[in-house]
Amino acid sequence: MFLTRTEYDRGVNTFSPEGRLFQVEYAIEAIKLGPTAIGLKTKEGVVLAVEKRITSPLLEPSSVEKIMEIDAHIGCAMSGLIADARTLVEHARVETQNHRFSYGEPMTVESTTQALCDLALRFGEGDEESMSRPFGVSLLIAGHDENGPSLYYTDPSGTFWQCNAKAIGSGSEGADSSLQEQYDKELTLQEAETIALSILKQVMEEKVTPNNVDIAKVSPTYHLYTPAEVEAVISRL
Amino acid sequence: MFLTRTEYDRGVNTFSPEGRLFQVEYAIEAIKLGPTAIGLKTKEGVVLAVEKRITSPLLEPSSVEKIMEIDAHIGCAMSGLIADARTLVEHARVETQNHRFSYGEPMTVESTTQALCDLALRFGEGDEESMSRPFGVSLLIAGHDENGPSLYYTDPSGTFWQCNAKAIGSGSEGADSSLQEQYDKELTLQEAETIALSILKQVMEEKVTPNNVDIAKVSPTYHLYTPAEVEAVISRL
Amino acid sequence: MFLTRTEYDRGVNTFSPEGRLFQVEYAIEAIKLGPTAIGLKTKEGVVLAVEKRITSPLLEPSSVEKIMEIDAHIGCAMSGLIADARTLVEHARVETQNHRFSYGEPMTVESTTQALCDLALRFGEGDEESMSRPFGVSLLIAGHDENGPSLYYTDPSGTFWQCNAKAIGSGSEGADSSLQEQYDKELTLQEAETIALSILKQVMEEKVTPNNVDIAKVSPTYHLYTPAEVEAVISRL
Amino acid sequence: MFLTRTEYDRGVNTFSPEGRLFQVEYAIEAIKLGPTAIGLKTKEGVVLAVEKRITSPLLEPSSVEKIMEIDAHIGCAMSGLIADARTLVEHARVETQNHRFSYGEPMTVESTTQALCDLALRFGEGDEESMSRPFGVSLLIAGHDENGPSLYYTDPSGTFWQCNAKAIGSGSEGADSSLQEQYDKELTLQEAETIALSILKQVMEEKVTPNNVDIAKVSPTYHLYTPAEVEAVISRL
Amino acid sequence: MFLTRTEYDRGVNTFSPEGRLFQVEYAIEAIKLGPTAIGLKTKEGVVLAVEKRITSPLLEPSSVEKIMEIDAHIGCAMSGLIADARTLVEHARVETQNHRFSYGEPMTVESTTQALCDLALRFGEGDEESMSRPFGVSLLIAGHDENGPSLYYTDPSGTFWQCNAKAIGSGSEGADSSLQEQYDKELTLQEAETIALSILKQVMEEKVTPNNVDIAKVSPTYHLYTPAEVEAVISRL
Amino acid sequence: MFLTRTEYDRGVNTFSPEGRLFQVEYAIEAIKLGPTAIGLKTKEGVVLAVEKRITSPLLEPSSVEKIMEIDAHIGCAMSGLIADARTLVEHARVETQNHRFSYGEPMTVESTTQALCDLALRFGEGDEESMSRPFGVSLLIAGHDENGPSLYYTDPSGTFWQCNAKAIGSGSEGADSSLQEQYDKELTLQEAETIALSILKQVMEEKVTPNNVDIAKVSPTYHLYTPAEVEAVISRL
Amino acid sequence: MFLTRTEYDRGVNTFSPEGRLFQVEYAIEAIKLGPTAIGLKTKEGVVLAVEKRITSPLLEPSSVEKIMEIDAHIGCAMSGLIADARTLVEHARVETQNHRFSYGEPMTVESTTQALCDLALRFGEGDEESMSRPFGVSLLIAGHDENGPSLYYTDPSGTFWQCNAKAIGSGSEGADSSLQEQYDKELTLQEAETIALSILKQVMEEKVTPNNVDIAKVSPTYHLYTPAEVEAVISRL
Repeated sequence: MFLTRTEYDRGVNTFSPEGRLFQVEYAIEAIKLGPTAIGLKTKEGVVLAVEKRITSPLLEPSSVEKIMEIDAHIGCAMSGLIADARTLVEHARVETQNHRFSYGEPMTVESTTQALCDLALRFGEGDEESMSRPFGVSLLIAGHDENGPSLYYTDPSGTFWQCNAKAIGSGSEGADSSLQEQYDKELTLQEAETIALSILKQVMEEKVTPNNVDIAKVSPTYHLYTPAEVEAVISRL
Repeated sequence: MFLTRTEYDRGVNTFSPEGRLFQVEYAIEAIKLGPTAIGLKTKEGVVLAVEKRITSPLLEPSSVEKIMEIDAHIGCAMSGLIADARTLVEHARVETQNHRFSYGEPMTVESTTQALCDLALRFGEGDEESMSRPFGVSLLIAGHDENGPSLYYTDPSGTFWQCNAKAIGSGSEGADSSLQEQYDKELTLQEAETIALSILKQVMEEKVTPNNVDIAKVSPTYHLYTPAEVEAVISRL
Repeated sequence: MFLTRTEYDRGVNTFSPEGRLFQVEYAIEAIKLGPTAIGLKTKEGVVLAVEKRITSPLLEPSSVEKIMEIDAHIGCAMSGLIADARTLVEHARVETQNHRFSYGEPMTVESTTQALCDLALRFGEGDEESMSRPFGVSLLIAGHDENGPSLYYTDPSGTFWQCNAKAIGSGSEGADSSLQEQYDKELTLQEAETIALSILKQVMEEKVTPNNVDIAKVSPTYHLYTPAEVEAVISRL
Repeated sequence: MFLTRTEYDRGVNTFSPEGRLFQVEYAIEAIKLGPTAIGLKTKEGVVLAVEKRITSPLLEPSSVEKIMEIDAHIGCAMSGLIADARTLVEHARVETQNHRFSYGEPMTVESTTQALCDLALRFGEGDEESMSRPFGVSLLIAGHDENGPSLYYTDPSGTFWQCNAKAIGSGSEGADSSLQEQYDKELTLQEAETIALSILKQVMEEKVTPNNVDIAKVSPTYHLYTPAEVEAVISRL
Repeated sequence: MFLTRTEYDRGVNTFSPEGRLFQVEYAIEAIKLGPTAIGLKTKEGVVLAVEKRITSPLLEPSSVEKIMEIDAHIGCAMSGLIADARTLVEHARVETQNHRFSYGEPMTVESTTQALCDLALRFGEGDEESMSRPFGVSLLIAGHDENGPSLYYTDPSGTFWQCNAKAIGSGSEGADSSLQEQYDKELTLQEAETIALSILKQVMEEKVTPNNVDIAKVSPTYHLYTPAEVEAVISRL
Repeated sequence: MFLTRTEYDRGVNTFSPEGRLFQVEYAIEAIKLGPTAIGLKTKEGVVLAVEKRITSPLLEPSSVEKIMEIDAHIGCAMSGLIADARTLVEHARVETQNHRFSYGEPMTVESTTQALCDLALRFGEGDEESMSRPFGVSLLIAGHDENGPSLYYTDPSGTFWQCNAKAIGSGSEGADSSLQEQYDKELTLQEAETIALSILKQVMEEKVTPNNVDIAKVSPTYHLYTPAEVEAVISRL
Repeated sequence: MFLTRTEYDRGVNTFSPEGRLFQVEYAIEAIKLGPTAIGLKTKEGVVLAVEKRITSPLLEPSSVEKIMEIDAHIGCAMSGLIADARTLVEHARVETQNHRFSYGEPMTVESTTQALCDLALRFGEGDEESMSRPFGVSLLIAGHDENGPSLYYTDPSGTFWQCNAKAIGSGSEGADSSLQEQYDKELTLQEAETIALSILKQVMEEKVTPNNVDIAKVSPTYHLYTPAEVEAVISRL
């Protein structure tokens, strides 16, 4: 069976006899190698929490960015190839800025997510903006617009879903189970912070510290927690 | 035999000795992996009903869109790769808007379907609008124009047919048989709703709820049913 | 021998050691899989008749178009990949319209056929109008111009021939034999209708009805028969 | 030996270790599959005669064109892929027309031949005018210009030679021998007609009729013989 | 296992089934072949020190540049393919000059690093500025801007991290361990010089001399040490 | 050894592990298949002599051109693929004409040779003027400019050398030995004619006649010998 | 091991698992096949000396150029593919001329070398100026500018080094050893001439004569020695 598979999976954008796109599936594998990220939507806003793998004590923890601002009302957490994520985020920043400039109002979270996915879908097309391979990254996009808070999940195939809560990365399987058990639509933002971090703690191999996790919220604007704010959440666990 | 086949099926757009285009056939396989969608044409309008696979209770059901509006008088249900379907629908939306702008009247359902299929046919051509592989999606296009209601079915080869009723996706074989038994040109729209949902119920592995099916009609304009309206159809089964 | 063949037949446009272009030959195979189409030229005009394979009773027979109008004085019947045929026909429609616009007179049937074949020949060239593979379709082009009625036959290699009568598709071998026996230059148009349909009847696996055959004539303008007109021809058999 | 050969012969334009271009050699093979064509130069003008393979009695013999006019003073006979030949002839027609327009005088036969060969040589170059493979056709170009009558022979490599007499196609070997025996520079045009047709008769598998051969002369202008004129030559055999 | 790997690693930009990009990983190997480079950030500024492999006594040591100035406030040390590094540095110099010209102020160190990585990430895209393979070089970028001194580390995947101290090249593993032991945020610049050189000395196979090491600082402007200044640091070991 | 070689020699422009470019070497083989050509430089001018292989008595000997004029003061003899040679000569003719037009004086022989070689070197580059493979031809370029008479020899790699005498083609090995024995800088042009033809006679398989050899001189202008002039040289042997 | 290597070395610009670029390494091999060239820098200027392989006594020695002038103050000696070297030198000549025109002063030797290497590095990029493979040539660039005399050495990877003395080509290993023994910064130009030629003599297989070596100096302008001047140096050995 493996031999047969290898005959189809190197073409960047070719169907296998079963109708599968292996390069996209392999890119999804790239994400399973990355650190875990978690998102939770509450009525008060959305919480994002990510594990940061600090491979050396000499690395500046704040330079390992796994949560980034897209626009004042949108942020995202990522897992997978960071350089790919940066390209997508940069693209989204330009799109949201252009939208503000053209229409005088913020881009909705769904439109922003769609714009990201349009770029992700067009890999292998050979035009200037697209990559020659799928983007090896998944994003949790947290935002707040006229429809209130929302959380989207994107994968390398350019597909996206709206979620109440979602985990991505190497610990996503266990984290998703925990989220299903603990998630409640009536959660406060503070409760969501605590759940996100306690689940992250379970899947991480080392002790949780302000150095190896990042937390952000969009409520209604993006805010990345300071080490002190992270410390406060940790102390509530 | 399988060995011989593999020698021809990786070229994106190459005939096998029997005159077959395997990449298109494999893309058609991709659709057989997708959830079932059903369309029925009545004198009063067209009904579309789709199964939604909600893989996690934390997913927002309304964000799993399997039925989309193309124009006020045209909607479509899809099965296969959702990101591909979005690209086709987006293309059709631009075409119908341009048509309204240029001619001051809605585009006919057939012209809209042809425009979608022109894009689907041109995969592998290397120009900017086309994909480097076949679109892995089938559409049921429901519309209403000067010729009354109509239902079209498209496949990844860029071919389309006009139908009275049609099912696509993983349960399409059984569903098509049931449709042939139960279809009647004199059906009312309400009867069509009931047939569509009862057939969908047969091919789905789980209980039918407003969360895991979507229903829409074009009669004469596109309308996606609210959960309450879906619930009402379910209660009639 | 088969092994040697496979070494040459995947290159889209490469000669084998015997000087053959296999991809074109395979495309010709695609046509042998399609339903049968027949054309007959008489002094009064040209008749086209095609088998329509209606795979489901829910399919709208009139949407299975196997005979199409190119211009008021030219129509064509097709066998093979329908989406490919649509592209060629669309191209021919633009050419004939442009000709009328530029020269104020209809394009001759031969020039129209040549324009179609020019496009068919240029597959694999990488320019915008051409396909990346041969067109998998044969056409019977019926027309009427200053030289009177004429019937052309095109194949995927971009070659065309003028004929008195010709059959294409899965039943073409038997149908061509029958045509040679029954064809006479002095046939009336009505006699030609009867011959075309009686031969089609022989090669079809099911009973001939207005639903599963289409008939058209160019005499001197294109006219697709209504179900009633088809029924009238059937009743004469 | 054969195995080694196959390693070099699929690259469209690649030398083998012995310095051979196999794709060109294979294209030359394509011509050996085609019907025989013969050209003879006399002081009074040039005669071209070709075999036409009429595969069906329903085919219009006059539409099987194996001899074509390029300009009033140049015609050509062909053997090999007819669609390729049409492309070359069309190119030559444009060149000769442009030359007349630019310089107010006819293009010489050699310049016309050179223009054809320039196009033939540039296969595989990827620019818009050239083919992605060698042209699978040989031409006998008959013309009359300020230097009197002349006959050129071109092959798929883009090379050309001036000849007194030459045969191409499946019967070329035997026909060339006969031509060497019978050719004489002092032949009259009528004698050349007779020789061309008698040799063609030897290599053809069926009886010679005005339906399965074409004859043309350039003396000093191009003239394709009517069936009656062909019949007259046949009667002289 | 090795056989399977080779099936994926030659495509410049293709995922393996485990989600890995082998060409990037191999480029990272290229860096492990290069001489060691070390960077240390102190409050007073950043120190860079590199080993220079002088393969022949006839080579001009000063022409073996392993530390280069990017802008007055940014310098970088490199390990890997020097010609690739030169391209990246040249690109960064243009970017920083353009920034000064457009905004009248120096580009921040992070923006400069990001600009370098944008170019590195886009290998294999076929546009004019990018390479057809990953850049086989790692950089230690030392700078001083409105946020004080900073040190960045980039790799061939286009990813970058901010560090307090970092070693790259063939001796990086041992050097990184030593840096972790000896690094202290309160180091003076002079202490950093001593640590950098003493660690370099450990991983070098030959005696340290002003000929085979280079030292530079950014404090707050770039300065490459003269042989005498290097000698002074050596004498402190 | 042969197996290893085949792994490198199909890439049009790829080095083998020993630093060889096999496609160029194979193109050089193509020349060894061609007829022999000889050039000799004397104080009075340069003589070129070539063997013409007349494969059929019906071929017009004068149309087998192996010596061509480039400009009034430059001619060349060739061996290898004639269509390739024509392309190079045509390129050189344009260059020399442009030079005369721009500078009002003839192009030097070396500059003309360099221009030819620039084109030959750039094979495989994909730009419009260059070939997709090496030119399979060698040229002996004879000229006369302000530096007096000169003879250049070019090969498919785009390299050229200035010579006193040189032979190319299938008999070049023996001919070169003979040239070394008989060449003398003090030769008269007539002696050079005799030597060239006597050496050609040795390597040719048939009797030398004005039909199967061509002779030309540049002294100081290009002149192709008439059959009578060739006969005169033959009679001196 | 060899088998594994061959899997990576045909991609023009692909890393092997060990981080190596084999095509560049093979191009470097091409240089080891070439004749030896030597450069020495003295306070008075730079000396270049090369072996010329005159394969036939009929070759004009002066046309075998292995030392070329780039600008009045820069010359270079080469080893490897001569046609490649000519392209690089031509590029450098244009660059230095443009510099003089734009800035009214000569280009520095280092900038000229950098310009050459920029072109060499960009092989395989597909833009118009670059080659599709590495340049198979090494250069010794001798120059004199505001910084006095200088000698650079470039290789096919686009890397360059400044040297006091350097040998390239088939005898470079032995020649480099001899240079290290005999080189002294206080050498006079005449002593450098003698050393260069005596070392060349050791590595050459035949007797040194003004016909098979070339000598040039840049002191402070480029001068290629006449045969008499070469003879004078030979006589001093």
